Amino acid sequence: MGNRIHNAAYQSKVMSAEDAAALINDGDRLGVSGFTGSGYPKAVPIALAARAKAEHEAGRSFRVGLNTGASTAPELDGELALADAVDFRTPYQSDPETRKRINAGSINYADIHLSHIAPQVRNGFHGKMDVAIIELTAIKADGSLVPSSSIGNNQAWLDAADRVIFEVNSWQSEDLEGMHDVFGGLRKAPLDFAIPVFHASDRIGSKYLTVDPAKVIAVVENDTPDRNSPFKPLDDVSKSIASHLLDFLDLEEKAGRLPDPMPAMQSGVGNIANAVLAGLLHGQFENLTSYTEVIQDGMVDLIDSGKLSVASATAFSLSPEYAKKMNDNAKFYRDKIILRNQEISNNPEVIRRLGMIAMNGMIEADIYGNVNSTHIMGSRMQNGIGGSGDFARNAALTVFVTPSTAKDGAISAIVPMVSHVDHTEHDTDLIISEYGVADLRGKSPRQRVPAIIKIAHPDFRPMLEEYFAVAQKVANGQHTPHDLSQALSWHQRMLATGTMKV
Amino acid sequence: MGNRIHNAAYQSKVMSAEDAAALINDGDRLGVSGFTGSGYPKAVPIALAARAKAEHEAGRSFRVGLNTGASTAPELDGELALADAVDFRTPYQSDPETRKRINAGSINYADIHLSHIAPQVRNGFHGKMDVAIIELTAIKADGSLVPSSSIGNNQAWLDAADRVIFEVNSWQSEDLEGMHDVFGGLRKAPLDFAIPVFHASDRIGSKYLTVDPAKVIAVVENDTPDRNSPFKPLDDVSKSIASHLLDFLDLEEKAGRLPDPMPAMQSGVGNIANAVLAGLLHGQFENLTSYTEVIQDGMVDLIDSGKLSVASATAFSLSPEYAKKMNDNAKFYRDKIILRNQEISNNPEVIRRLGMIAMNGMIEADIYGNVNSTHIMGSRMQNGIGGSGDFARNAALTVFVTPSTAKDGAISAIVPMVSHVDHTEHDTDLIISEYGVADLRGKSPRQRVPAIIKIAHPDFRPMLEEYFAVAQKVANGQHTPHDLSQALSWHQRMLATGTMKV
Repeated sequence: MGNRIHNAAYQSKVMSAEDAAALINDGDRLGVSGFTGSGYPKAVPIALAARAKAEHEAGRSFRVGLNTGASTAPELDGELALADAVDFRTPYQSDPETRKRINAGSINYADIHLSHIAPQVRNGFHGKMDVAIIELTAIKADGSLVPSSSIGNNQAWLDAADRVIFEVNSWQSEDLEGMHDVFGGLRKAPLDFAIPVFHASDRIGSKYLTVDPAKVIAVVENDTPDRNSPFKPLDDVSKSIASHLLDFLDLEEKAGRLPDPMPAMQSGVGNIANAVLAGLLHGQFENLTSYTEVIQDGMVDLIDSGKLSVASATAFSLSPEYAKKMNDNAKFYRDKIILRNQEISNNPEVIRRLGMIAMNGMIEADIYGNVNSTHIMGSRMQNGIGGSGDFARNAALTVFVTPSTAKDGAISAIVPMVSHVDHTEHDTDLIISEYGVADLRGKSPRQRVPAIIKIAHPDFRPMLEEYFAVAQKVANGQHTPHDLSQALSWHQRMLATGTMKV
Repeated sequence: MGNRIHNAAYQSKVMSAEDAAALINDGDRLGVSGFTGSGYPKAVPIALAARAKAEHEAGRSFRVGLNTGASTAPELDGELALADAVDFRTPYQSDPETRKRINAGSINYADIHLSHIAPQVRNGFHGKMDVAIIELTAIKADGSLVPSSSIGNNQAWLDAADRVIFEVNSWQSEDLEGMHDVFGGLRKAPLDFAIPVFHASDRIGSKYLTVDPAKVIAVVENDTPDRNSPFKPLDDVSKSIASHLLDFLDLEEKAGRLPDPMPAMQSGVGNIANAVLAGLLHGQFENLTSYTEVIQDGMVDLIDSGKLSVASATAFSLSPEYAKKMNDNAKFYRDKIILRNQEISNNPEVIRRLGMIAMNGMIEADIYGNVNSTHIMGSRMQNGIGGSGDFARNAALTVFVTPSTAKDGAISAIVPMVSHVDHTEHDTDLIISEYGVADLRGKSPRQRVPAIIKIAHPDFRPMLEEYFAVAQKVANGQHTPHDLSQALSWHQRMLATGTMKV
């Protein structure tokens, strides 16, 4: 371990992960750090899972509720799920073991907008928060708390929790100090001030988290890397989707529908987003800014190139290679990257003000522009809505991107009616697949249909056209014509036969 | 006619409605004033409809696109629809003749959030705006434009349109002058300032609309009342729903989950909203504020009682009796009522900041908390989403209210799966019927089911329970268990047999 605890009072609270886990009770609601696999506690959750297993073996119940920033990692969500130690989870997850239990009905999962969860906790909508477990990079001699690779809800959980456990992780670079911008002014609304972010580069808070020291019951040392999943190499479909978006932005710029410089962009996590970022690297746009949730590899390249002047987010989501680069060069990047509270990175006030372009992935869209981001065949939770709703709902241009098919072509991303709605037809401006851009702006539902069918996979286009033709014959209204007997038949067929194809 | 045009330059442009209508061309996109039946032009649209009929009879095409604030009245939407003079309509309507043609497929209707349409037009997403037709109360000697009984998108249309026609309506009280607050700072985002509303009572703009006088091609005089539909007397179901909400607020207040004074409230239009307002008249809460879309009768009573200190909105929606009272006493009410641009009355930044309680009606909700506000049996448009999305998405407490049944008990407001989604499960905090409050906060979808079934009509509860039981057996996941073969069966049965009952 590095020597990262420079304050005597906190040094006196150092203990093992096991001893810290022993301070957590059955039924506690935990507020834990962690966002897209970065900045989550890595020792106490494992010890807590072991404790839960031992309790269960002794015939005693031991389960906790778990609030995070967003998704974490096997050491946290995975271990606790495997130990059957979680009965409630919010606001977002992407863990295979947790997902299994959510869909088996043994974990109750409230899938909540990432900007809403902290205000909801603050308002008392989720009851009492018992213990916060927060990863730090260091504790300075004066007691200042240097955050690590995500901010997420950390300050909100530190404010709300009765008891606090810190994990100080010496894997995190000490040079991260100064990259963070923790806004401490958030309290129960009504607020009598504006969120003072007027440009992605505005710093409005403190470099440090704050806590009432009397609440801190344990400090645990640790030296483990973040999850940092590698990105797959860019595939042709992702590259093609990215180039359609970039071509569209070029045309919008020529048509005078883009401000100059380009408004701040948000991009969801993943390969298509990284392909878009790679495309921007070689495109015409300069002076780019990013006001988004997570810092991905592509943004680091854009910063290196000078095209991206600032990237504002709440967390890293880097490949191992780029995480190393970040750790080695944090001193360089900490002026160009700002990590904020997720209430600020995803704040509707700021998103609307900046006139943002928001780009997110999805599971499926229907011929009328409704978007499903969360559910497989209507019932099964994949990950969650995350921040996509925060951005899609308040951006100036709301874009959803998707490959036209999944499961080797068995599943169409364009269906007659989505099996779950996370983003309504009222919020969707563009849908982009490898076959092009469906521009839904200013169109009635019926006018959207040909635009959307055009970007479906060719195998499914005749089926969609036939659905629309029949729907117009049998529907009780021509605003959004549906044949309710067939609207969900593609999903039913998939469940029954393993393909949406007839 | 009263003498309301005190400026010589505008006096010289006075002409008949017929002459003004002759200045509008086939294919024009019109930006027209009007919001919930108040402040819409009442003469030019009738003349335009006559002109369209004559053109059609002469074998020539004549149709226009129509942007308003929200719903208007028979003289506008009704006459133009009857004349087959509308090919595109946005962002909201509630007109029977327009609805008929939307559902017949002859009018394309883009159902857009009321706070989004003006920014979309400004961004160029809807093409060129040709003519604005805006009702005024008066034109002062210095050319100042006194608005009438709604602001809506008037300033946005005046800014965007190539040509402008004013209707000056002497039925509107001259004492309205000073009630309005027209914010002129709205331009294409990114904005470098906050919307400076920090309390419902904040005035941030001008008493007058502004226009480039060179664009004004006609001024038409008029003396016709607003639509002003009478409210039905409060029925028992509405009273019961209102009392459930008020009891809930009492409990929240006792539990410390409501700020003191109570945060600003928004309420949708209609009888349930008026029942809630009537309930507040006799309830415990003082120093109420309203930050909402429309001023309804109940708010006038609350102002009279001293319980409501300020009501901020974008339009009136009064009964004839209360409209007369408002006109007779505008001098008294203009300090307590503020009519704003609908971009401001419905602004997500302000709604989030104020930590609002938003209460809107709905058509149906499903057992998981998804809400349909717009579509009858999936295909047929009723009115539109209006501002419900603006508020529901950004409020601190999002409430939907509904009688448990419609059509004499044949239709259940609670169904297995809604046939269209306007407000997702992520946005819905409470659903209230005459049977009680379903509190969905912090619950997983499965946990919401019993809470929601409890407020369904008793006739439908066993059917809902059976659906949920079967869904859990057949679903591919237990997060949101659905039986896709039966999910929309209630709507299909209604269409086939005239009732959702078996």
